[in-house]
Amino acid sequence: MFSNKIKTLPEVTADRIIEYIIENRLEPDDRIPNETELGQILSVGRSTVREAVRLLVSRNVLVIRRGAGTYVAQNTGIPEDPLGLVFSTDRYKLAKDLLEMRIILEPEIASMAANRADERNIAEIWKYCRMTEEYIARDEDHMPPDVEFHKAIAKSTGNNVVEKIIPIIDTSVAVFVNITYGRLKDETITTHRLIAEAIERHDATAAKHAMMMHMLYNKYRIEEIIEKHSSNMTQFNTVI
Amino acid sequence: MFSNKIKTLPEVTADRIIEYIIENRLEPDDRIPNETELGQILSVGRSTVREAVRLLVSRNVLVIRRGAGTYVAQNTGIPEDPLGLVFSTDRYKLAKDLLEMRIILEPEIASMAANRADERNIAEIWKYCRMTEEYIARDEDHMPPDVEFHKAIAKSTGNNVVEKIIPIIDTSVAVFVNITYGRLKDETITTHRLIAEAIERHDATAAKHAMMMHMLYNKYRIEEIIEKHSSNMTQFNTVI
Repeated sequence: MFSNKIKTLPEVTADRIIEYIIENRLEPDDRIPNETELGQILSVGRSTVREAVRLLVSRNVLVIRRGAGTYVAQNTGIPEDPLGLVFSTDRYKLAKDLLEMRIILEPEIASMAANRADERNIAEIWKYCRMTEEYIARDEDHMPPDVEFHKAIAKSTGNNVVEKIIPIIDTSVAVFVNITYGRLKDETITTHRLIAEAIERHDATAAKHAMMMHMLYNKYRIEEIIEKHSSNMTQFNTVI
Repeated sequence: MFSNKIKTLPEVTADRIIEYIIENRLEPDDRIPNETELGQILSVGRSTVREAVRLLVSRNVLVIRRGAGTYVAQNTGIPEDPLGLVFSTDRYKLAKDLLEMRIILEPEIASMAANRADERNIAEIWKYCRMTEEYIARDEDHMPPDVEFHKAIAKSTGNNVVEKIIPIIDTSVAVFVNITYGRLKDETITTHRLIAEAIERHDATAAKHAMMMHMLYNKYRIEEIIEKHSSNMTQFNTVI
């Protein structure tokens, strides 16, 4: 019932390359030995090493830079879609579920961030706050710096699990349900500023409330969109 | 700054196999066409298909059953260690961080579960509640049914993102920091029952409080262990 599967030689080799990275305290962007050297270190053939490296690339542990070698990846070990959300076919339900999760998480995290943020964290939060406003002013898609803003807050908590999970959820919003978020530009500017100010003055309650307001604006916006969508569906069905 | 990398042919083929799974509404445990058939469907060579399938196995989208064929995996697309926690070298810090995340999430989720659980959800929660007690009575490692208990609660929320994230966090506790949790057996039995009873009578506040108590017992236990560990470290350093 709770058993594990048997691993193939390339899979075992991939595990041993991970051990090598940990034991040698390699960091993101550090280069790892080439195929021949790894084969010697781990006593396996080059084709096994090559396959193991491919598996680790697909798990975002390694990145291959053509002509330069193989390196430890940024966000080591966190793949592109770690929650398998590509398999969620109902985009409206996914938007609601992601937001419900954000409503639980992000106000508490903003509160922790206000308690723990240092000068560097606060500078980073303001940097992405401003960048988001610049993108909005230029009428560019502001989701990438917006996600960075929320990541900078998560990073301020000093909690590594928080720091890993927030980008997964917020990037999923950007990638899988981007459409629904586009229209709250003024609100985004106002509440982002309120959040950044509260964290800067280490006011945990104000940070939590500002983040909650930001999330609830999004919630009612999404509910509006879903309602419109389902009444269109009904009309459509009625016409046919 | 926010750019994406260029994909190789096997990676593109892997994406197209995912599209095939979604479009044909294949479910976990459904069989996919063999290499030759997939090659024809996608107009690529067999060796490309083979490599794409291996990538999808490493991402837990597919499983190969020897002599039987290739199937859609359970928990489709969620790899074994989606947060890359194998790279966290400080196990005590990881234990604290995971628990801090659980303290934010699980009481709220228990509350949602109490509002939304149907008869089947409640039966499943009680099933794993009893199974955990049986494992404890037999002095076996009770983490596997314990994780299933928390998964059953997450499932009761009807929120697919909650349902995906809770097992990732709770399994990480079992896999990466198992040691710290072993000693709270009586407390586990008592609070698990309180949680199950509250969800059964749809009392959201009681469910939230019982889950919070469960989490806080664990928190103080972990802090005790960390304190002991660091005072041992100090002694050790002093002796040397």
